[in-house]
Amino acid sequence: MEYDCVVIGSGIAGLTASIYLKRSNLKILVLESATPGGLLNKISKIENYPGFKEISGPKLAENILEQINNLDIEIRYGKVININDNVITTDIEQIKAKKIILAIGKSIKKQDNLLNVSYCATCDANMYKDKVVAIIGNDNRVISEALYLSDICKKVYMLYQTNLTGEDILIEKINNKNNIEIYDNCIIKQLISDKNILKSIETNTKKFIVDGMFIYQNNIPDTEFLKDIKKDNNYIIVDNNMKTNIDYIYACGDVIKKDVYQLTTAASEATIAAINVKKSLM
Amino acid sequence: MEYDCVVIGSGIAGLTASIYLKRSNLKILVLESATPGGLLNKISKIENYPGFKEISGPKLAENILEQINNLDIEIRYGKVININDNVITTDIEQIKAKKIILAIGKSIKKQDNLLNVSYCATCDANMYKDKVVAIIGNDNRVISEALYLSDICKKVYMLYQTNLTGEDILIEKINNKNNIEIYDNCIIKQLISDKNILKSIETNTKKFIVDGMFIYQNNIPDTEFLKDIKKDNNYIIVDNNMKTNIDYIYACGDVIKKDVYQLTTAASEATIAAINVKKSLM
Repeated sequence: MEYDCVVIGSGIAGLTASIYLKRSNLKILVLESATPGGLLNKISKIENYPGFKEISGPKLAENILEQINNLDIEIRYGKVININDNVITTDIEQIKAKKIILAIGKSIKKQDNLLNVSYCATCDANMYKDKVVAIIGNDNRVISEALYLSDICKKVYMLYQTNLTGEDILIEKINNKNNIEIYDNCIIKQLISDKNILKSIETNTKKFIVDGMFIYQNNIPDTEFLKDIKKDNNYIIVDNNMKTNIDYIYACGDVIKKDVYQLTTAASEATIAAINVKKSLM
Repeated sequence: MEYDCVVIGSGIAGLTASIYLKRSNLKILVLESATPGGLLNKISKIENYPGFKEISGPKLAENILEQINNLDIEIRYGKVININDNVITTDIEQIKAKKIILAIGKSIKKQDNLLNVSYCATCDANMYKDKVVAIIGNDNRVISEALYLSDICKKVYMLYQTNLTGEDILIEKINNKNNIEIYDNCIIKQLISDKNILKSIETNTKKFIVDGMFIYQNNIPDTEFLKDIKKDNNYIIVDNNMKTNIDYIYACGDVIKKDVYQLTTAASEATIAAINVKKSLM
């Protein structure tokens, strides 16, 4: 028994790809290792996904899973250990697939207990208008996020362990913002919270009283098991058609190397991957 | 009075861009010449947009407009006549903008009265499972759409006026499908319908009894007024950041040259355009 396409992962990318694949009359399967919905299950409030004024991640996942059920799309459970010669080996079985779409996202080491800790300024900055936030991390992306926050928040503390690294043009912009305070060689000792709300951050040098915190650390995809696929810092490299360097393997969503990590972009990449899988099988 | 960014067009692309722009604290305006919602207003049933098992285009537009209202985003009416040196001239006024996002889509010359006429196989093929359809048009895209339909429909009549033009590999595939019948030099004389349902197509040579029809003609964007912007067959050419050849003008959605025209891709391009506009203003 061979599938036309197996989608690995069931976040918004995997589910969107499977909707398009199934509607194009292919024999498909969605493989998931944990709870269907992926990272959606960890987003408390979504306000920038077109179609919903406000929706929780789990509710959006539930809606999309209803679409999946309605289309009779099979979801099977198993943790993928290896992919080789069109055969997916999970901890339970082996599955043959003409094409594979990797939509495994990335796991975030979340502070699940704290409601005012975020991982994406574009998504959540709006919650901290004229408030004081800390941003943890140190690279080009973090500097961009800090600049973004500085336009919305009253004050941004930028905390990191080493020296500031990033493009000169971004560092110059950061230095020109008078509401960004930079603290290097700063090691976080303790997060102090009350009723699941982070109140302050204790570091080796100073205590920061904050309304919220943005964390940009340790969030890279778990793609070590994909030995032959081209990656950059664990992010899978794809072409414009979402194809990897391996002819029968595509990828989409948070697992790929790109500039913008949003629900809308993940859904779009999934659409493009599915349409190109279909084209390649016509 | 100068806006940070003016979004021209209020289909899913324009509205999504404006959600992201406004949430990033920019002073923005949406300009629309007709009904807010754009092409969404002309889609009767959407089943492949993640989050809704089934929704009408106008209802999805209404939902997104509720998001827009909730964010206090200003929508103003006017038909854009000209854009020059950061000034937009409409039939009513002149508006200054640091950045502009073009999301003007493309108008479809629709058979509004016929319920079983479609303009996108990926969107609507599912409605014609094991049924007989005609497809009107003749180029690579139309051949791809015909192949797509042939996997889902019982029979596909491909009707066009001249000779078949397209890549050899696609033409070979078409010829190998035994449920695609090709009719060249075929001129449509009359559409025969009953109670808003197309029943048959009368041509100069033959009468075709069909369950549905897919039209791929005359659907190009109306971008003649944009004199200095690089285009290909009226479609605006953008880079990966959705920027046109003019530094302050971006574009997204159906108006740009690309491979996949779906709601998901339009929303994604809008997200990317908005984030890059914000970055350029930081």
